[in-house]
Amino acid sequence: MTGREARAAIRERSWTGPTERLAPDYVQANLAVVPRAFAADLADLCARNPVPCPLVEAPLAPGAFVPRCAPDADLRTDLGRYRVWRDGALVAQPADVRELWDADLVAFLIGCSFTFDHALARAGLTPRHYALERNVPMYRTRVPLAPAGALRGPMVVSMRPYRAAEIERVRAVTRPFRVAHGEPVAWGDPGALGIADLTRPDYGDPPLLEPDDVPVFWGCGVTPQSVIVASRLPFAITHEPGHMFVTDLVHEDLRLPVEVG
Amino acid sequence: MTGREARAAIRERSWTGPTERLAPDYVQANLAVVPRAFAADLADLCARNPVPCPLVEAPLAPGAFVPRCAPDADLRTDLGRYRVWRDGALVAQPADVRELWDADLVAFLIGCSFTFDHALARAGLTPRHYALERNVPMYRTRVPLAPAGALRGPMVVSMRPYRAAEIERVRAVTRPFRVAHGEPVAWGDPGALGIADLTRPDYGDPPLLEPDDVPVFWGCGVTPQSVIVASRLPFAITHEPGHMFVTDLVHEDLRLPVEVG
Repeated sequence: MTGREARAAIRERSWTGPTERLAPDYVQANLAVVPRAFAADLADLCARNPVPCPLVEAPLAPGAFVPRCAPDADLRTDLGRYRVWRDGALVAQPADVRELWDADLVAFLIGCSFTFDHALARAGLTPRHYALERNVPMYRTRVPLAPAGALRGPMVVSMRPYRAAEIERVRAVTRPFRVAHGEPVAWGDPGALGIADLTRPDYGDPPLLEPDDVPVFWGCGVTPQSVIVASRLPFAITHEPGHMFVTDLVHEDLRLPVEVG
Repeated sequence: MTGREARAAIRERSWTGPTERLAPDYVQANLAVVPRAFAADLADLCARNPVPCPLVEAPLAPGAFVPRCAPDADLRTDLGRYRVWRDGALVAQPADVRELWDADLVAFLIGCSFTFDHALARAGLTPRHYALERNVPMYRTRVPLAPAGALRGPMVVSMRPYRAAEIERVRAVTRPFRVAHGEPVAWGDPGALGIADLTRPDYGDPPLLEPDDVPVFWGCGVTPQSVIVASRLPFAITHEPGHMFVTDLVHEDLRLPVEVG
């Protein structure tokens, strides 16, 4: 399935679940939509925290809902489920946000680790949630973001369990996907990130853990949702975690080389 | 004094102290020099952690010691004091590193908060260490950097005490200096960053604290030194904290506008 076909399936409600295995060659993105008054702060927050909040493209113009990475898409209808936030609280989870959209809103598309799960699978390192067709578990950490103006909050991470001997290969496979969070931010001790209980994720499905598992954590594009809460934004729209925007970009578009002199 | 005049004074040993008030209109930089085998990892670490590790310019070519930001300078002689590291341990603090430099070394210049201290002073928010002609206090935190390949370590921060009522103005003045760490990463509770005792900085001079002080923390370009230790790099050269490289760039060159759609 292509990105365009995936968006059509979502828009027509023939696909209503998480987008993980849909259009596996295409880049998926987190959505965060904020009032224009907070757009410069969110742009700065993303620039200062590029591992959890890598921008897939520059923020859209105020009011715009057609992104450059999918010129025939509509960000108001082409995600399976949305979250609506008022004063930092989740108030609704609709499947369409056309009635809420207005000229004052600025949309941000932020990279998603679903983008590299297919590459992990092809390398013989299939993430367990991917093999089991579950949503990835995600956790709010106690690692503070670098704040930006009115915006602050903790980093959110996704977790995939691996055997210790696999971790360096997992790092190498995911590292080039810098716009999809790149290599892990931590592995081993969840307590070092302030995660108290791996079996109770804050978003997504609980992990099915096995005895020799080492939890491996990546920056997660749900992070702006922790910022919306911590900063008590008066209004915001986001995607429902796991229900991503599927773009027309392919994975190779994100495999930026590392620059070095 | 210009950047060029400051470098001449340092090279001739007529100036041997911290560079804080030297050439106050010019951008100052932290130095980190690593073997070519670690250069791609350090470039990636800087890209993933731009608040503590903002690059003033792209890493130099292997072996090169003349930066683009000061075309008549020599990075081997134009800093007041250096640190030499072997296997993650500090082994020497020479005033010249010409004999240690070879074609395998790659130099990185990273922004420094000294660059905005003059702007704070002009805004009536003179940092106390600046007024007292002391070195700024710096602390290793427990905030983990996003790792990159072989490199990992905790963020280092600098600290300036302010009254609570001044903090939003201090944030606004420093925010545009994004290549000099920008606005603070935290203020208030040192324990939230894992700093146990403000009176005992890991680098620089102890702060002179007053009863109503709120500690304000900025990302610090000494961070690569914590990475050299934590990652046990076989060899590295850095500046001595506070003894910076003074460039030919002026402050306005770093005041990047925040992009927003």
